[in-house]
Formats: sequence, structure tokens, C-alpha cells
Amino acid sequence: MQALVLEHTKELALRDIDLPLSVGPDDVKIAVHTVGVCGSDVHYYVHGGIGDYIVREPMVLGHEGSGTVVEVGSAVTNLKVGDRVCMEPGVPDLTSRASKLGIYNVDPAVVFWATPPVHGILTPFIVHPAAFTYRMPDNVSFAEGALVEPFAIGMQAAKRAGIVPGDVAVVTGCGTIGIMIALAALAGGCSKVVVSDISSEKLKIAAQYPGIVPVDVSKTTLADAVNEATGNWGADVVFEASGNARVYDDILRVVRPGGAIVLVGLPADVVPFNVNNAIAREVRIETVFRYANVYDRALAQIASGKVDLKPLISATFPFSEGVAAFERAAKALPADIKLQIVVAQGDSNG
Amino acid sequence: MQALVLEHTKELALRDIDLPLSVGPDDVKIAVHTVGVCGSDVHYYVHGGIGDYIVREPMVLGHEGSGTVVEVGSAVTNLKVGDRVCMEPGVPDLTSRASKLGIYNVDPAVVFWATPPVHGILTPFIVHPAAFTYRMPDNVSFAEGALVEPFAIGMQAAKRAGIVPGDVAVVTGCGTIGIMIALAALAGGCSKVVVSDISSEKLKIAAQYPGIVPVDVSKTTLADAVNEATGNWGADVVFEASGNARVYDDILRVVRPGGAIVLVGLPADVVPFNVNNAIAREVRIETVFRYANVYDRALAQIASGKVDLKPLISATFPFSEGVAAFERAAKALPADIKLQIVVAQGDSNG
Amino acid sequence: MQALVLEHTKELALRDIDLPLSVGPDDVKIAVHTVGVCGSDVHYYVHGGIGDYIVREPMVLGHEGSGTVVEVGSAVTNLKVGDRVCMEPGVPDLTSRASKLGIYNVDPAVVFWATPPVHGILTPFIVHPAAFTYRMPDNVSFAEGALVEPFAIGMQAAKRAGIVPGDVAVVTGCGTIGIMIALAALAGGCSKVVVSDISSEKLKIAAQYPGIVPVDVSKTTLADAVNEATGNWGADVVFEASGNARVYDDILRVVRPGGAIVLVGLPADVVPFNVNNAIAREVRIETVFRYANVYDRALAQIASGKVDLKPLISATFPFSEGVAAFERAAKALPADIKLQIVVAQGDSNG
Amino acid sequence: MQALVLEHTKELALRDIDLPLSVGPDDVKIAVHTVGVCGSDVHYYVHGGIGDYIVREPMVLGHEGSGTVVEVGSAVTNLKVGDRVCMEPGVPDLTSRASKLGIYNVDPAVVFWATPPVHGILTPFIVHPAAFTYRMPDNVSFAEGALVEPFAIGMQAAKRAGIVPGDVAVVTGCGTIGIMIALAALAGGCSKVVVSDISSEKLKIAAQYPGIVPVDVSKTTLADAVNEATGNWGADVVFEASGNARVYDDILRVVRPGGAIVLVGLPADVVPFNVNNAIAREVRIETVFRYANVYDRALAQIASGKVDLKPLISATFPFSEGVAAFERAAKALPADIKLQIVVAQGDSNG
Repeated sequence: MQALVLEHTKELALRDIDLPLSVGPDDVKIAVHTVGVCGSDVHYYVHGGIGDYIVREPMVLGHEGSGTVVEVGSAVTNLKVGDRVCMEPGVPDLTSRASKLGIYNVDPAVVFWATPPVHGILTPFIVHPAAFTYRMPDNVSFAEGALVEPFAIGMQAAKRAGIVPGDVAVVTGCGTIGIMIALAALAGGCSKVVVSDISSEKLKIAAQYPGIVPVDVSKTTLADAVNEATGNWGADVVFEASGNARVYDDILRVVRPGGAIVLVGLPADVVPFNVNNAIAREVRIETVFRYANVYDRALAQIASGKVDLKPLISATFPFSEGVAAFERAAKALPADIKLQIVVAQGDSNG
Repeated sequence: MQALVLEHTKELALRDIDLPLSVGPDDVKIAVHTVGVCGSDVHYYVHGGIGDYIVREPMVLGHEGSGTVVEVGSAVTNLKVGDRVCMEPGVPDLTSRASKLGIYNVDPAVVFWATPPVHGILTPFIVHPAAFTYRMPDNVSFAEGALVEPFAIGMQAAKRAGIVPGDVAVVTGCGTIGIMIALAALAGGCSKVVVSDISSEKLKIAAQYPGIVPVDVSKTTLADAVNEATGNWGADVVFEASGNARVYDDILRVVRPGGAIVLVGLPADVVPFNVNNAIAREVRIETVFRYANVYDRALAQIASGKVDLKPLISATFPFSEGVAAFERAAKALPADIKLQIVVAQGDSNG
Repeated sequence: MQALVLEHTKELALRDIDLPLSVGPDDVKIAVHTVGVCGSDVHYYVHGGIGDYIVREPMVLGHEGSGTVVEVGSAVTNLKVGDRVCMEPGVPDLTSRASKLGIYNVDPAVVFWATPPVHGILTPFIVHPAAFTYRMPDNVSFAEGALVEPFAIGMQAAKRAGIVPGDVAVVTGCGTIGIMIALAALAGGCSKVVVSDISSEKLKIAAQYPGIVPVDVSKTTLADAVNEATGNWGADVVFEASGNARVYDDILRVVRPGGAIVLVGLPADVVPFNVNNAIAREVRIETVFRYANVYDRALAQIASGKVDLKPLISATFPFSEGVAAFERAAKALPADIKLQIVVAQGDSNG
Repeated sequence: MQALVLEHTKELALRDIDLPLSVGPDDVKIAVHTVGVCGSDVHYYVHGGIGDYIVREPMVLGHEGSGTVVEVGSAVTNLKVGDRVCMEPGVPDLTSRASKLGIYNVDPAVVFWATPPVHGILTPFIVHPAAFTYRMPDNVSFAEGALVEPFAIGMQAAKRAGIVPGDVAVVTGCGTIGIMIALAALAGGCSKVVVSDISSEKLKIAAQYPGIVPVDVSKTTLADAVNEATGNWGADVVFEASGNARVYDDILRVVRPGGAIVLVGLPADVVPFNVNNAIAREVRIETVFRYANVYDRALAQIASGKVDLKPLISATFPFSEGVAAFERAAKALPADIKLQIVVAQGDSNG
């Protein structure tokens, strides 16, 4: 079967590769429609690895996908052939202690697409457990379905924040995940979300959403912006999505007494952390690792019209131009929020 | 000073009455602008009492108000003369055990406007603690400010529900409070809210809000509607706002396993409650008594544009026609969601 | 294989019966050691059914068990032959929506021992999923291990209560479950637990535990006792474990403003519930259906010495006298908290 | 009136000083009985300041106190003359936003005893708001009452941890606060608490409490100890009470997936924090600043016998030897957990 294969660092090929396609009793077989290009895919492409995860064998990329069920296992009851679906890319051991607790995302045994040595889904057909495959409402397009994965991180962040209706939030970092968090937080109960970045292009994209207050921190301080937005009280929730160690002083400065900080961005190194400042406001700090139990919720927010992800699709490539999609993604253009690849042939993107 | 005074059952007069107006160090004096007519006001007017609260002396009605600060006490720092404000009508003993815990709404010592023997605010000037007086953002009108009180009940219900972003909710009862809850739940994180009633007129008003799914339970069952809305899984949260004992079987039927029920409506009598059914789904049941710490949040949701309460104002009366406002309210017309009285003279309602 | 079989109402036999014993990859085979007699077992014995669950075919009784692993499936990693274990009797579909959420106890697909038509474990050997089999610390005896099941209900109640350290609790009903809840609540953070009943014999057993305050409600009112214990503030948590509809007024009277009520007891019929009283104190009501994710916690509390369940074992019967154990249990002697049957032969109970 | 006055760094005198003693309507006047010597008192004595708080004027030391009510203000209802009490040393502005939320400890306006320029209580008589004065049960001694303040920090830590009954906890640092946290966590629901330090003398004191597992990290690693205590799963809650930056790697290593870290110790500087490790386990991090709403709970845990603080009193000094008490405290002997000064004359310490 054809697939977009990362041979090794900076060498990507659309070529045939043997992939297992046997359908177990709890599995479904899916014709892949649309796959988003994630920063992690690009990182593997450019650097050949992320931390301890090194690409040692050719690996199919892609983990943000939607498609159509073409075959169902004998024990599957929640899906049928023809269902339009999106897929949660991490599959835990459901018998594990973490899974039984409902936090299957932190099960050490999770198998996650396009994380070496596990193949991704930039290929026409895949097999996946039905329990991690979600039927999309009719008004959710395949393109939106392929955005559920990055939006799920925003949903997980919003869930872990424990938003109280009417909270004012801050998001530091206006990349793809920063915007996803801001949209999830707004739909998830916040009254407004201050989003900070130094890229005016990124902030401009975020600013088109009502409720998002863009702050260019190359021109003003985050503290000033948050003080103005909150009457000097501070933000109820601060989401850190930049992975930049230098914002760690700021986030402790702009959170209100008794507020929450939610860490999503992955810094390149340890960060200098002012514990005393955190304690002085008795803040709660949550962290976000992927997601659990939010795919259905993400779909509900999109289907109801509360969240419109379509403006975040910067460009769409046919499968045959998959390599070009990655070359462009590697340029990290500030206005490129999300690039997508349509694997399905002869099909409109919807 | 003039005031709208309930003399005794069914006798209401706009007349002079002596009211204390001394401003303590922590108080502000407010020129009342707009006051909403609440069901409890009408109940006192029609029946002369609610439960143990009997109107034994002439009492000024009204507790849903907005206005302008005209004087501030010596210790007040959060407000200044000229501030446009809305007022929280219940004032607790801040030194009480409940208040220290942050649940000042259940402090037995709360003094609440227009609850015998405490006067309400249908009068040109009042004095109130600054701590329970909230500055309105510029884009919130006096009319909206006077709606914050009933909306605060919706906010309290949404807060107590512990909404997880993307939850599907049900509200039984589409009266003023039912709609307020539905709007607070949607803005507070729910993806959609199924609202049930037997009045097509009320449901029509609710249906104009995106995300609200009206269900006429004189024509279909709530269970069918919720099953369709949730793929037979059940609602994450069910808000009971009808006060009708007959819905108690339904709400246990439509809540999902592990879901929550939030009781807001006050039934006339004890309700027959099927504990076993509640246990079989291990539901959590929250109750809502007025509100605490939500006025600022309510204002934030209104000011951000997430909640538009203006379509709920059915009619506005000048102070001089205050009695007429109550006469109409006593008719309980199904399409009358909220009647308001403008106390301020020669001022536009904004 | 021999087993204690309920043939039909009131007819119990220790006789051979065919039971499946094939060990799947995720299963373990267990030599049963001790099995407790539960009220539900007795109810099936005396009445032939509980609600919709009717004994239509001969059924092995027993679901409170401990034993020793004698064989492990090929994929089992958490257990080995020789491990002393206790077993969680309900097995959900781990791929279900409820299980993924961590609330597998409310998965409608749960298969539960000794619930028609599923056999129980009063038989020498059983097969069970390793994920629901828990290794016992060395200092926990088989007798204690067989008490983990009823204690787990107490643990679930304590968990759902959301105890804040130092809470004062009330338990209405001093039967087996009432005592289990009281002990779980004390070990789980409560400073003291007022336990009410009308049986002085039951209260005497409970009273031997420090921290339990017994109240004979045939002699004094619960309200008086709780007022005295809490300085008229009310209890932080009230656990209802009697299943008696008449206590429902009391529990709303003795809970503090903003407190919690936890419903565990199953009333025979709907209860008259005063919603207005619940709302006036803005209480939270939790319900408890079996348990999830508490077996390991229950074992930890027992092993650490914080909870001593041994005084609750009223009598122990050898397997050969299993019918006699049920005959005695059917008498419901007030001082009989827990009867146990030792299935293992030639072994001391430890 | 006599008082133990810190004149300036390292100069302490028992001498007369003018202190205000007027009793307002909400106040009580208290004859001070016992006062504990806190690390912060000693720090002011030795260094003349803590961070931004510099002793510029002579200041009475002491904030951990118990005593007897000798006069009550006109509006006081919860206390009467003769009541034995302990006192919460921080008094917030009850009308503040933080106080209304129930988190009065983080109100920026808090006035706290023995924090420059506010005087402490090492003096025979003081005046304090009744709302922050707590009647002690008869079986709680004055010595124990003076331990409620440091124990309250442990209670706050246990509360913020959100302990689920049966949790296994770790406390890094076996000083006074570390032991207080361990005891509060055990009484608050934990099954056992691993306490680490490098002082065998401190660990020996902690080890006398059942449920505490001492770990000398000069001899073994914390990771090994926690793996053994938890079957390689990790601790549910890790309390950091050492203020030592070097433990920050350890605490991320020993917390279980989805577990919680509670920061109490104040490091001298920023700490290097591995955000990626925190995210990989999706840990929750809570911080503890003093306490709110736990004094009554602390007293309940002591009075019920669940917590015995008496073994932590290392030595007791009469008021006349107050300077000697501080000289000894300044030596920081490892076995000195708590030194106390009895201000009351001619009274036994009970």
C-alpha cells in the first residue's frame, strides 16, 4: 500500500510499504480521508527524532485523521460501514491501572501513531480499535474531523483547567495549539481569552474570533494587558502554550490569587521556576499530556457551531503532493496554522 | 421618598415611605435606574407571602436592579461616584462560618431585598454595601444590569453543575429561570442544551438562541429527545427548573451514567423520588440556592457578547406605571419572560 | 466441581456443578479461600430474586472472596502463581464509554458474580480477569481479603463524599454497610462519625471503634446528637445507609449549609423528598453504586492498620457447613455483622 | 504591658511596651496562655527580616497561640468569657474579593501577627476578631492549642491535595512542617506517608507515628523507597516541605501518573523545573500559602484523637525565659521540633 514514509531525517517518500490490515473483533478498517500535518510530524521529518523517540526504521507519518469506515470487526456495535469518523491516535492498554482510572492518556503502554516505531496514517487504509474511533455528526467535514486531534489538546487543557463559567483566561503562545486552547477555553466557559505572542500574523488570525483579545508582547507587557482585562485582579486561568522558558515569570505575575496555570507547551530545557511566587498566590498548576475522553466532546463543540476551526486550515494538499506539504510545513510560515493532506482520491473535502 | 409599596395582598401603591439612607463607611448610595419584576415579587403581591415569609408590614418590592453610584462611604475603594452598577440583593454576615467558606449565600443571617420584613429597591435611591455592588462594563446597559440577578441564578446553576467542556445539558422548564440556566450553561461550556416545556410560546423564545434544542413535552417525550441528542447515552447534566414534581422520573431517565442533576425549581410539596434509579446511574445531585461569587462572572459573560439577555425583556414600564407592570406580571402571559420598570426619570434605558 | 448452589428459593445445596474454568490470556485461575455471605446472597436465597434479577436457573452464590492464584494467563504481568489475592466481583466491558471514563461500575455491560444468571464463587476454583484481581499485602489475611468487597462500598462512599480532612460525618443505619462506611470515612479523613440506628446491639459493635459516636434514635433524635457533635452547625457529610424512607427528613435536617449527603441504602420504594429543604442549604447529594478503582485503596487502608475489619467477622463456617451459614444469615441476628465461609480445605484462615 | 520584643537583629528583650487593647464589637480580648516559637520568629530574630519584610521598629514576636477569653465585644455570639481558645494569626479584609470567595488567606490585605510592622502575641493580653478565634474542646490542652497554627499548614496542604481515601503520600523534608503535613495527610485519608530527610534524628521522631515510613535519603534513594511502597506505581500525592531545590527532580520521579504534587516549602531561590517530566505524567501541582477555613478542622482532628501533636513539643519555657527559648531555637537542634513559651503565670500547661 502507498504511504508517506519518512525514510530518515529530511527524506520523505510517497511509496509502497507493507502495513498490517487485519481487522480484529474490536477493530474497524477505515479509508483515510484527510490528515493534518502536526508539528511533531515535521519535527521527525526535520530532526529525525523527538527526545528519546528516534526514527530508526522507515516510518509512515501522520496522526491527525478522519475517514470512512469500510469494515467492522465482529464485536463492534458503535460503528457501521459508511460511518464518517475521526480517530484518536493513541491506544492504551485498557486493562492498565491508568486506563481503569479513566486517565488512559498517561498509561505508559499507550501506542501512538507516528511515534517511532509506530506507523502513522498517511496511507489510504488503516485499522483501528472501534473504541477510539468516533462517528462525526453530518455537519462536521472531513477537514474539520482531521482537526479534532489538535483541538483535543485544547479541550484537554480546558477540561483540566476546571474552568468556572465566566473565567477570564490567558494563553501564552499563539501557535496552532495556543489557538486551539483559546477556542476550547472560550467554548468551554471562559468569557474572554487574552492571547499573547510576538507574531502579529499569528495574532491577526486569532483576533478574528470574538472573545479573543490579542496581545503583542513585543509592544506591550502581558501584565499590563491582563490588568486592563481584569481590573487588576489577574486571570482566573493562564494556559502556557509557548514552551518558552521566559514566560514563566509572566504567568505567575498575571494569574489571580487562587487562580490556575495550565502547562501545555514543552520547553526545550528545564525552566527557572519561582516557587515562592506561585505559593504567594496559592496557584494551582495543571499539566496536559495529550488527552483522554475528549474526542466526543470536541466533536460536540464543533458540531454545535460553538467552535469554528475552518479558518485555521491554511492550505490543503492532495496525497500526491504530500512531500510538498511537509516542505512547506518545515518553513514554519507564521500564518500557516494548519496544513492538511487529502489522502482520499476523487472526493470533495467534506 | 417615593417607592412601590406592597401594602398587603393584592394592594400595591406608588407612594412616599420613610427609608433609611445613611451611608456607612463600606456602603455606597445608588440612584436606582432599572428594576426587574421577579416571580417572587409577584408572588408576594398576589399571595402576600412565600412559605414562612409573610408580608405583615408594608414592604417595598423589587430586588433585580441596576443604577448609578451617587455617594461612596469613606472606606470604599472599588467604586466611585458615577459608576454604573448592578447590585447583589442578599447581604450576609461576612464574619459567619458560611461566609468565611465562600458560601455566603447559605449564611442563615443573609438579609435579602424584598423578603419580609426587608424592603426592596423600587425607589429612587438606596444604600448598599460596596462589596455587593458591581461596576458594569460600558457595553452593558442598565436593562441588562437589571437582568444580572436572575441570570446569576443560571450562573450559579452552571457553576454547581461542574460543567465539563462539551457537555450536553437538559433544562426542564422554559420559564425565566429555565432560559437563564440554558444560556448560562451554553456560555459556561455546554455544547448544546435541550430545553423542555409544554408552552410552545416559551419554547419559541428559547429556540432563537443557537445551541438550544426546544422540546415540547406535550408532543414528544423528553427521553426520546435526549436519546436522539446524545446517541442514547444520556445528558451529562440535567437542570430541573420547573418545580414540577412530575418531571422527577424523567430527569433520572435522561441523565447519563455518572451524570449530574441540578435542582433549581422549588416544588410546591415533597416529591416522590426514586433513590434506586439515582443510585443505579450513580448520579450526582446538586442544588442551587440563590448565588455566591457569580455577579462579576455574569457581567463578564454578558459584556463579552457570549450571552445576550436583551431578547428576554418583554416590556418596560416607567416608574409611574409600576403598578401596571405588576398587574401584567400577575397574568403570567406565557411570552412574558421579563418585565422591567425604569425608576430613573428622563433617562434613556442604557 | 463442588459449589454452593441456590437451586431455587430457599433451597440451597452443596453439590457438583459444571463451571467453565478455561484461562484466557488476561485471566488468572484462583483457588478460592474465604467467601463472605452478603445480604444480597441471602436475599436471593430467601426470596429468589432482587428486583428484576430473578433466579431462574441454579446459581452458585457468593461474591465476596479471597484466594490464591494457581494459574496465570499468557498476557498477565501483575500477578504470579502463589499470590494471595482478593477479587472485584464486577467485570465491565473495558472498551465502553463508561469504562474509558473511569466509571466502569456504571457500565451497563458489567457482569457481576452471583447476580442471575451469573454464577458466584462459593466453589473451590474460579477464573477471573487479572485486571480485577488484587494482590494482598502479607499482613492482610484471607478473612480480611473477603471483607474487602463490602468495605469497598464504604470506600466508594467515602470517595464520592469528597471528604475534606476534619469533616464530621453522620451515617444513618448501623448494618454491615453502615459500619463499613463509618470506618472508611474515619480512615478517609473524617474526624468523627455519628452512627445512628435503633439496634443497641449493632451500635455496641460500632462503638468499639474510636471516632464513632453511636446514637440510638429510639431514645434520642438524630438532630440533637448532631447538633451536640457539631456545635449546631450540622454535619459536613451525611451517609444514608439504612434504606429507610423515614430518615430522609432527618438527613436534610442534620447536614450543614453547603454540606453533602451520600445515598447508599436502597429504599424499598420511592421516598418523599423535600427538595426545598435540600435547596435551602444548597446541599450536594451523591449516590453510590458498587465501586470503581477502590480495591487497591481498600487494601491499603487495611494493610496500614488504619482500618481493622476483623471485629466485624461474627462467625466462620467451613465450606461443608455453607448451608448452615446461610440459614443463620437468614435469621438476621442483630449482632451478626458478617458471616464467612472458608472454602479452602486444611488451611488456617490467614 | 510586658512583651517579648525584637528590638532589632539578634536583640530580644522582655520589657514593657504600649500595645492597643481596645475591644471592638466583633473582637474578643484574650489572656494569652501558650505561644509556640516558629521558624519565622527565629528568622526575624537572627536575620532581622524575611524577604521584603524587614523589622524596622521594635516588634513583639509570636503568632502560634492559645489562651482564655477574658472579654467579648458587643456583637460577639460565638464566644464567651472563660472560653479556652486558639487564634488564627492572619486577619483578612472580609469584604475583599478573595475573602468572599473563601480564600481569605490570599487576600493581599491580610494582617498577620509578628510580620513587620504588625506585633505578635508574646504578651499577656491581646485583642483579636472573634471570627478568627476558635473555642477548643475540653480535651485539647493549651499546649496543643498553640500547635494548631503549624498543624493548620499541614491541614491546608492535606485539603489542597484533594486526598482520595487510601492515597499513598510522600513528604520531602521532616522538619516541623513536614511532620505536620504527614500527620494531617494520614488523618486526612492517606493510608501511609513516606517521609524523607537526611536527619536520622528528625526521622526517628516521625517514625514513632504508625503509618509514617521514614526514608533516610542519605542512605537510599527516594525513588527506591516509593517504588517499594507503591509497587512501582508511584505516590498519589507528593508534599514538598524541604524548600530544597534539589528535590524537584525527585518529586517528579516518584509521583504516579496523574498524581499530585503539593508545594509548601519555600526555596531560597528559583528552582530548575522539568516541565516536560511534569507533563509526561500529567501531574497536578498545588501550592499552599498559610491556610483558610482549617482551624476548626485542625481542632476536630486533634480532639478526636486522630492526631497526637504532644510528642512534637521538645521543650517548654516560662515567659520569663522567653529569650532563652529563642536562643535555643536559633541553634536549630535536629531533635527540636517545637519549643513553646508559657505566657500565663501560675497555671499548669493544660
